Formats: sequence, structure tokens, C-alpha cells
Amino acid sequence: MILTGLDIDSKVKTKEIIISPYHEEQVNPNSYNFRLGAMIKVYNSFPLDPKVMNSVEEIIIPEEGYVLQPNRLYLASTEEVMGSNFYAPTFAARSSIARLGLFINLSADLGDIGYIGQWTLQLFTIHPLRIYRGMRIGQIMWWKPQGDIKLYNGKYQGSNGPQQTQIYKDFEKGASKVVFNI
Amino acid sequence: MILTGLDIDSKVKTKEIIISPYHEEQVNPNSYNFRLGAMIKVYNSFPLDPKVMNSVEEIIIPEEGYVLQPNRLYLASTEEVMGSNFYAPTFAARSSIARLGLFINLSADLGDIGYIGQWTLQLFTIHPLRIYRGMRIGQIMWWKPQGDIKLYNGKYQGSNGPQQTQIYKDFEKGASKVVFNI
Amino acid sequence: MILTGLDIDSKVKTKEIIISPYHEEQVNPNSYNFRLGAMIKVYNSFPLDPKVMNSVEEIIIPEEGYVLQPNRLYLASTEEVMGSNFYAPTFAARSSIARLGLFINLSADLGDIGYIGQWTLQLFTIHPLRIYRGMRIGQIMWWKPQGDIKLYNGKYQGSNGPQQTQIYKDFEKGASKVVFNI
Repeated sequence: MILTGLDIDSKVKTKEIIISPYHEEQVNPNSYNFRLGAMIKVYNSFPLDPKVMNSVEEIIIPEEGYVLQPNRLYLASTEEVMGSNFYAPTFAARSSIARLGLFINLSADLGDIGYIGQWTLQLFTIHPLRIYRGMRIGQIMWWKPQGDIKLYNGKYQGSNGPQQTQIYKDFEKGASKVVFNI
Repeated sequence: MILTGLDIDSKVKTKEIIISPYHEEQVNPNSYNFRLGAMIKVYNSFPLDPKVMNSVEEIIIPEEGYVLQPNRLYLASTEEVMGSNFYAPTFAARSSIARLGLFINLSADLGDIGYIGQWTLQLFTIHPLRIYRGMRIGQIMWWKPQGDIKLYNGKYQGSNGPQQTQIYKDFEKGASKVVFNI
Repeated sequence: MILTGLDIDSKVKTKEIIISPYHEEQVNPNSYNFRLGAMIKVYNSFPLDPKVMNSVEEIIIPEEGYVLQPNRLYLASTEEVMGSNFYAPTFAARSSIARLGLFINLSADLGDIGYIGQWTLQLFTIHPLRIYRGMRIGQIMWWKPQGDIKLYNGKYQGSNGPQQTQIYKDFEKGASKVVFNI
């Protein structure tokens, strides 16, 4: 079952769901609209390789906005800290954002029960597009789980701002020893 | 819970779910295959900016089909009017369509309980690809909600054909006054 | 309801869910991490047309990996055979993969109850990116259905390796006679 907006609101009040900062006017019929944080990271050396730590540069979105260019990946993050130990989250672009030609994730819409932090977004635009910090860019949904819960305890826990991939740690450790490997 | 195809069929008959026109042979094990409408819209001035109304041009897909080009966003719509006051919808490309290199939404797969209308699709192709009006292009799924329902009452309600973004209205009104802001 | 990782593990043991090969360490809080198979297919004649069989070339990913290039679609597959006659699947890229600029499906994240086979992935990268066979690339989720079940019996059943689109069969048969048309 997907939580309705009124149910999300009630679970935020009982702290079963964390959304901070939280504004009731950002509640939708079955999701919550989150905002874009101020920092962006871009990779600056190619080809990218999952086996190594790929270097990044940081950009702060200025007050007047920042124009994203096609054919580039921009790692951004939500302004909000979000998560739950009781419900599983997924997220999507607002349709108003997608209608401008912008992806906010790359076929990667799933979160984990127990992750609490800012969420890294993958911005990818088809046409040049101006974005603004604090704009309502995406929607988080919450789903009731079936079964016993083992909480997320992975490498991105408690993230602050956009996080580049840490997949190279999988290869360092050897895949067979990794328990939670999001 | 996700509704099975047989359950979608039964809810269409009781009018708890609206799909119009509706054909039983488009029912899948846990979704319904919808069709591509005849009209396409493309933006014609860049960079796009969420704060202003971005102008568009209209294209009607001819009988012999229309070749989509890479690196462009095409706004299209479903042929069907679809929605429900009881179940939450999400939608996806048919895998047969994605295997041709075509996206039908840009990380924006969520609808709202209470929206009833044609659905705007965001078409984006990797390679030149011919499309046809009326082709079965995507799949809608329906999810049982948990909690009290406040129906969608937003700016795209009852849409007819593809709708460009109306996100500039958020900025006009000031974000803090917007209640439903999909 | 979405199955938790512990519930996926229990359903794999009762064979209500098939994941083969299966490794407990690839279980996440509410999904299972699957691996990339060794074969890739690419189309080699354009524009693509859903009404005809579009020809492909095969690539085997060598031991040292293979560098995907932007602006191309690569059809790949999971290493695992996966499916269920009892739960509906969806799948996503691992966030660690998406943070490298790689899509693993093109807005097509839904599977069908009753499909059992390897899953075709649509790989699309923003920047040149090295990939490795056997790398944990995506996540499958399982959802409890509501309603009577009619199992998938479509044209991709039991797939082995990446499968190009078979949508041209829709046009041959005439759309109105197709019952299951994923």
C-alpha cells in the first residue's frame, strides 16, 4: 500500500517518517514534494570507472539560478533530510519538472527502510534549463512493507549534500563480503 | 498492494477506475497497456526556465508515422482518459518500447489519486525512431492506498492532449500558498 | 505492500520467488541486488521502426570490462533468472550505478507476475563508463498483488540473455487479437 498524503502527514507527526524541514503545503494526494539543495557535483575525468574513486568538482547554485547543459550528469541533493524505519521510500521527478526535459534520477528510484539523510539526485537535462535552489523538484512516496525489517546500514547512511558513487568500495572489499550494498 | 489485471478489469466495470476507451485485450497481468495520442508538442526557445511560460509548437503524427530525433524532448499524451478516486496510479514504458531506445517519462512515473484526464508523456529517444499514433506505448499500474484520501485538485486536472509545464504558476503564486503542487 | 529483504529471502526459500543464482549477501532492506550478464546487443541500422525486425550485433564483455559510449542504446541482461507466480516485480538501478551516469532501464521498470527468465536491461550512459560482467548493477523489488492472478504468457517468457524488441509481432497479428502484450 502507498501512503496517502494525509497518512504521510500523520506519520511525520508521530516521527515514524522523518521529513525535515517539513511544510504541510508540500503534501500531495499520495506523495510529498521535496526541494533542491544548493550544491551540485560534477565528475571531471573520463571514462568513469566503478573500480576507482572518480574525482568531482563542486558548484554552488547562485541566487539567480544555474543553467544545466545537456550531455552532462549533475549530482545534486534534496534540501530535506528524509527517511523512515517503518516505511519504504521511492521518489520521482514532479511531472512539472519532467515536462521541462529534466530527469532527477537515472532509473534509480528506490530507497531503503532505515536510510535517513539528504537524498542524492542525478540531474540530466535534454535541453539547456535554468534551475533554482530551493525549487520543489521531486516527490517522495512511502510504501507499507511486508515482513520483518532489517534496517539500512550502508555506505551512504546520513548523507549531507550530494554524494558521488562509492561503488569502488564493493570491489575493494570483494563482493562476497558486502552485506548491504546499495 | 498492486492491482492484478483481473482486478483492474473489475474496478473499471464498477467505475472505481476510469480508462476510456477501454479494451480488455490491453490488460496485462498487473497493468493496462495504453495508447499514444496523435498530438506532440515541442519547445522552441532555449534555455528553458521554470519561472516563465515556455513557448511550444504542435505536431500531428501523420498516418505513416513520425520519426523522433535524439536530443529533443517531445511532449505527447495518452489516447485514453485515465484516473481514479480510489487507487494511486504509476506508469511505465512497455518493455517492448524501451528496447527500442525510447523513454516515455523522465523519472516522473507517479500520478495522483483524483486526477482524471489524458496523461502527458515525455518522449525522449536515443536513436532516430519512427512512432505511430494509437500504438500501445505504455502501461499504467494501480496501487491500493493506506490512509484518508484528499483528491487531486491541481493545475493539470482534466487535461486534454499533451500539456507543457505550468510550473511558472508556482513562482507567480509564491510557493508557500500552493497546496497541491504537482 | 513491498516485501522486505527478509521476506524476499523467505520466499526464495519456499520457491514462491525464483532468483537463481541467489546469494544472501545481495539482499537489501527491501530489494535484491542482481548482476550484469556477459552479453550485450546493439542495433546497427536506423531509424528504428517498431513495425519491422531491427537487426542487432552482439558484444561479449571481456574480463577487463567494456567502455559504454554516450548516445547509444545497449541491450544487456541480468545474470540471474528471476520471477514469481505470486508477487509482482519492479526493478531499478542501484543508486551507486546511477551516480555514475548510467540508466539500466528507460522508464520501463515493471515486470509481470508469471514471467520467469533473465531480464533484459536497457543500458544508456551519459558519460563514457567502463562496465564489468557480473557487477551488481540493479535491484529487484517484489510487491504483493490484490485480485485474482492471470499469469504472464507473453512473447519474452523464459528469455535467455538480452532480447531485442519483438513489438513488430503486435503489428503482424493486429493489435486487437493480442491478449498479453508486454
